[in-house]
Amino acid sequence: MNNISFRDVTILDGFWKDRQKTNAEKTIYSVRDRFEETGRFDAFRFEWKEGMEKKPHIFWDSDIAKWIESVAYIIEKEPRPDLEQKVDEVVELMEKNQRDDGYFNIYFTVCEPDKRFSNRDCHELYCAGHLTEAAIAYYYATGKDKMLKIMCRYLDLIDRVFRIEDSAAFHTPGHEEIELALVKLYRCTGEQKWLTLAKYFIDRRGMQEEVPEAFWCSSRYYQSHLPCREQLTAEGHSVRACYLYTGMADVALECGDEALKNACFSVFDDIYNKKMYLTGGIGQSAVGEAFTVPYDLPNSRAYTETCAAIALVYFASRMQKMRVDSRFGDVIEKAIFNGILSGVSLDGESFFYKNPLEFLHAERGRNVGVPKHQEPFPEAVRQRVFGCSCCPPNITRFIASIGDYILSEDKNTVYIHQYISSTVKTSLGEIKIATDYPYDGKIEISTDSSFTGKLALRIPEFSKNSYTIKRLKHEETARYLKDNSIEIHSLSLAKQLLEDNSETITPVIENGYAYIDIDKASKIELTLDISPKTVYANPLVNEDAGKVAVTAGPLVYCAESVDNGENLRALKIGSLSGFSREYDESLGTYNIIADAQRLTQDAFNGGLYAYARQYMPCKIKLIPFYACINRGECDMTVWLTSD
Amino acid sequence: MNNISFRDVTILDGFWKDRQKTNAEKTIYSVRDRFEETGRFDAFRFEWKEGMEKKPHIFWDSDIAKWIESVAYIIEKEPRPDLEQKVDEVVELMEKNQRDDGYFNIYFTVCEPDKRFSNRDCHELYCAGHLTEAAIAYYYATGKDKMLKIMCRYLDLIDRVFRIEDSAAFHTPGHEEIELALVKLYRCTGEQKWLTLAKYFIDRRGMQEEVPEAFWCSSRYYQSHLPCREQLTAEGHSVRACYLYTGMADVALECGDEALKNACFSVFDDIYNKKMYLTGGIGQSAVGEAFTVPYDLPNSRAYTETCAAIALVYFASRMQKMRVDSRFGDVIEKAIFNGILSGVSLDGESFFYKNPLEFLHAERGRNVGVPKHQEPFPEAVRQRVFGCSCCPPNITRFIASIGDYILSEDKNTVYIHQYISSTVKTSLGEIKIATDYPYDGKIEISTDSSFTGKLALRIPEFSKNSYTIKRLKHEETARYLKDNSIEIHSLSLAKQLLEDNSETITPVIENGYAYIDIDKASKIELTLDISPKTVYANPLVNEDAGKVAVTAGPLVYCAESVDNGENLRALKIGSLSGFSREYDESLGTYNIIADAQRLTQDAFNGGLYAYARQYMPCKIKLIPFYACINRGECDMTVWLTSD
Repeated sequence: MNNISFRDVTILDGFWKDRQKTNAEKTIYSVRDRFEETGRFDAFRFEWKEGMEKKPHIFWDSDIAKWIESVAYIIEKEPRPDLEQKVDEVVELMEKNQRDDGYFNIYFTVCEPDKRFSNRDCHELYCAGHLTEAAIAYYYATGKDKMLKIMCRYLDLIDRVFRIEDSAAFHTPGHEEIELALVKLYRCTGEQKWLTLAKYFIDRRGMQEEVPEAFWCSSRYYQSHLPCREQLTAEGHSVRACYLYTGMADVALECGDEALKNACFSVFDDIYNKKMYLTGGIGQSAVGEAFTVPYDLPNSRAYTETCAAIALVYFASRMQKMRVDSRFGDVIEKAIFNGILSGVSLDGESFFYKNPLEFLHAERGRNVGVPKHQEPFPEAVRQRVFGCSCCPPNITRFIASIGDYILSEDKNTVYIHQYISSTVKTSLGEIKIATDYPYDGKIEISTDSSFTGKLALRIPEFSKNSYTIKRLKHEETARYLKDNSIEIHSLSLAKQLLEDNSETITPVIENGYAYIDIDKASKIELTLDISPKTVYANPLVNEDAGKVAVTAGPLVYCAESVDNGENLRALKIGSLSGFSREYDESLGTYNIIADAQRLTQDAFNGGLYAYARQYMPCKIKLIPFYACINRGECDMTVWLTSD
Repeated sequence: MNNISFRDVTILDGFWKDRQKTNAEKTIYSVRDRFEETGRFDAFRFEWKEGMEKKPHIFWDSDIAKWIESVAYIIEKEPRPDLEQKVDEVVELMEKNQRDDGYFNIYFTVCEPDKRFSNRDCHELYCAGHLTEAAIAYYYATGKDKMLKIMCRYLDLIDRVFRIEDSAAFHTPGHEEIELALVKLYRCTGEQKWLTLAKYFIDRRGMQEEVPEAFWCSSRYYQSHLPCREQLTAEGHSVRACYLYTGMADVALECGDEALKNACFSVFDDIYNKKMYLTGGIGQSAVGEAFTVPYDLPNSRAYTETCAAIALVYFASRMQKMRVDSRFGDVIEKAIFNGILSGVSLDGESFFYKNPLEFLHAERGRNVGVPKHQEPFPEAVRQRVFGCSCCPPNITRFIASIGDYILSEDKNTVYIHQYISSTVKTSLGEIKIATDYPYDGKIEISTDSSFTGKLALRIPEFSKNSYTIKRLKHEETARYLKDNSIEIHSLSLAKQLLEDNSETITPVIENGYAYIDIDKASKIELTLDISPKTVYANPLVNEDAGKVAVTAGPLVYCAESVDNGENLRALKIGSLSGFSREYDESLGTYNIIADAQRLTQDAFNGGLYAYARQYMPCKIKLIPFYACINRGECDMTVWLTSD
């Protein structure tokens, strides 16, 4: 199955069009400005000397690379001469400062020239990977191949040093990324050597100890504890992990490597069934930004980095090509509407690094006696810039290329994975998706007159027991009216007529997809059940015992103290009977107002414990998780005390 | 009001007699043997040299001191020549190795002789305090004053260096303890100078910065952030804190210092209303072993050191002398039956340092990717010995002197604070308390024929709405039967007759005490409601939202996985209707069997989240918290998911 690229997709008005507009008009410039201020662009001049400010950091190359990739995805759809010129300037500097042997890395040229390829922990190959992804994107967007050539020269050096000569001080990347970039480059150039190098890094990983004894972390942190084909669970640093699994899936697909595919399926199951937050967030611990043990899903201590959720979508999108299984699309949907989108503020200009499911300001300052040893709780406030600034340009490139996740196709079927308003060119014909999803469950899918084949529509987990699919007979109806000279003066009558003339169909469902035969121009109306639902966590999830969350369609909801007062854990909800839906002008969201109860102080008499308790009926306002913390610092929780 | 010393108390058969027996026959020897093995006794030879094993540690003096104090309390009641001889040997070594100027500290004589009185963080004055307490106890128990004289010489030096010359590198103890010891010494010897020095340390504390900048902790950790009289909240290292507050209360009482008294009341309220676990445990964070912020009471991450609960009892017992208020006795009772007693195994030979309200084995190993950075979770297994071995000899001395907490008296009233089977000599006459409390709510209190005055009986918080007090008329009944030549052949008839002839009285209740006038020999029967009750935490306690605990009388109960299967958080309880009580031969406890429900896996289909949930009715077995983790490593929880 082939994914259909965002290049063949035109996003139409709707939820994601709005996000792309903010991304292209605000975020891309905001990130650029922060990178200018912090010296990240200037670093490409290679002019830093000891004693100067703004010393280049080992991962600055990758920050700019992701920004360039974002620019490429934006200008693919609409010209932006100012951004393109800025990229060209960077590429000029890259050309000027590339070493004679092809080497290109700012930190290890300017700051530690003798340490090239000596420290596995220093993101050298990770930067090369991101620069490669940027070069490919920029080439596709503009036809300009200068950056691509620079990167190919550098990668030839990497290929020689790591694969052919095996002469570096380490053997596989400390922070994976280059593997997936090399497969992209292979697909872009058709040159086998890049796939060979990607496969080499994957074959070599975990074959010998590469973490110094007594180092701060173990080989598991780097996914180097086992050969890749024996890695059956998700382990270690979660971004590193999912970039690796993405690369593994890419290589498995290209090489038909069954052992590698099996490892990918197993790792995915481990994440899906044991290590993923309701929001699609992953990485349960701030210690090592890492996966921990099954069912360990702390909320206020969650790490759930924006980049990790993005990396999980990359992984799931590759898995989607291996096997038809709606779980992959479900995970992508969870992440894009929740754990990724929460990473950027509604105005597009400030960011979260961590996206925990609860903010408790009382917890943050708890170690008052030992303030230098504060525990690593996430901060309930968004930042315009941060030192480790991997997330802002990552979410920028992600939103700009959201079209990548909508469809894929094989010989005679087009799979619709994500319901995003768009027109898409497929081999079988053009498709139009029109919807106000996720705030409306109705999705209209039209095919053009040339379309022959099947449509396979993902039925999300949340709606699998309550969806309807209709074949809309607009044209037949119109033709009938015309033939019989009937004029319709009322819109509601017209709608009724259309309804009466549409046919509810019950297509075959396989692996979570509804298969519908299409012959020429057709209109299909899929209605998903996006009514609010209570969700519970598996009894093995200690953190969520006695708790309930509320979702509506793919959206996870949360309560904020700005709406519900302090002390959110004192609120208890039962069933959602009697909820109402309310449009929120300032957030641009549909909120849920539900009946709740608040544990009162009455029985406690100012003390800590009581033999009785009293609840007071109240209303609770829930907003979509992606919109949290947009009204100043406040407490927030996804999981609420349950009846 | 004066406390009546354990010296005037004879513990009779019952709950605490059993504990004292284990303590005197097992624990005291077990601690001695561990201290022998680790070189703590040998350290008193002052023969350690660089390169040798078993280097003396800065707090070893205090470990042995507490062991000596324990021995003194035991031999006060029954001779133990072997233990007494061991103490005499230590005292001989102390005499031999005391420096000419009176200085006595093993570490700073043997290991760092040039560093005497230079490092506030090194427990020098703390060790002096504990040795002083031991010397006083040993003097009372045996009449031998050699150790007392050694300590007075040392304290004269401390008085000169710290108070008179102010020539040490610091001004107040880094780990408080000596303050309370000095007041004890003042009371023992009548010498004013010891009270003066105690008051000096308290007056001086917090008057200037004594923590080096960039040190690992702040002055708040050491209770040095404010002058003592301005310290209105409990802060920093919890054992240090409560030893200080005890000393403050002692000085306030002796000096009639109202500002100091007010600070003590305020600090006590802060602990009682905002920072104390249901078990009487304190110290919410392993980071700094410290008090944190109000209402922050994590369960599985609780620190709740045994020594901290003991220190809280010391503090509360001093407060009890300042003001009649049953809260002080309530706190002492909570701690002695729960958070202190849990610190020693039922066999008396292994210990907890931390006494958290929940053990979750899954949490302990969560940072698998970064195993060197494990979070400081308590271990669900008791240790026979540990490096920082302050708790084992502390609990030993505490149990041996439990009689200290039973009564106090003023001019014409004897206050009964704790219901422990015993006979007690008071100024107003002898009192006998007979009870199977805490497993029976019936407490019979008899006064002898010389007794004239009032009895004030503490009505514990848990029973304040449901207790009965009767005046038993055994003697009148017996006289009547005799006078009328009535013979009673049936025990039940006799009981009924006694019941009929006893008079339910409704004494005045003031500040939680029931005041009863006594004229000569009387028998009073107090019946407390020890039926199991559900308890809830204040809505501001985030950690316990939606949770319930079960107590019965003063005992806090808990569920263990060895009885209830893994995954204790999946158990949910509602009301306790239909519970039963069951004697447990192996633990020697009365357990509670109650109806519960278990969240099943049924709705989850192997996954993490579901839109429905199912519970299965089941029984839950609850054991007293003090008996937890006596059957191997297992999960345990006090707080259960609530209906």
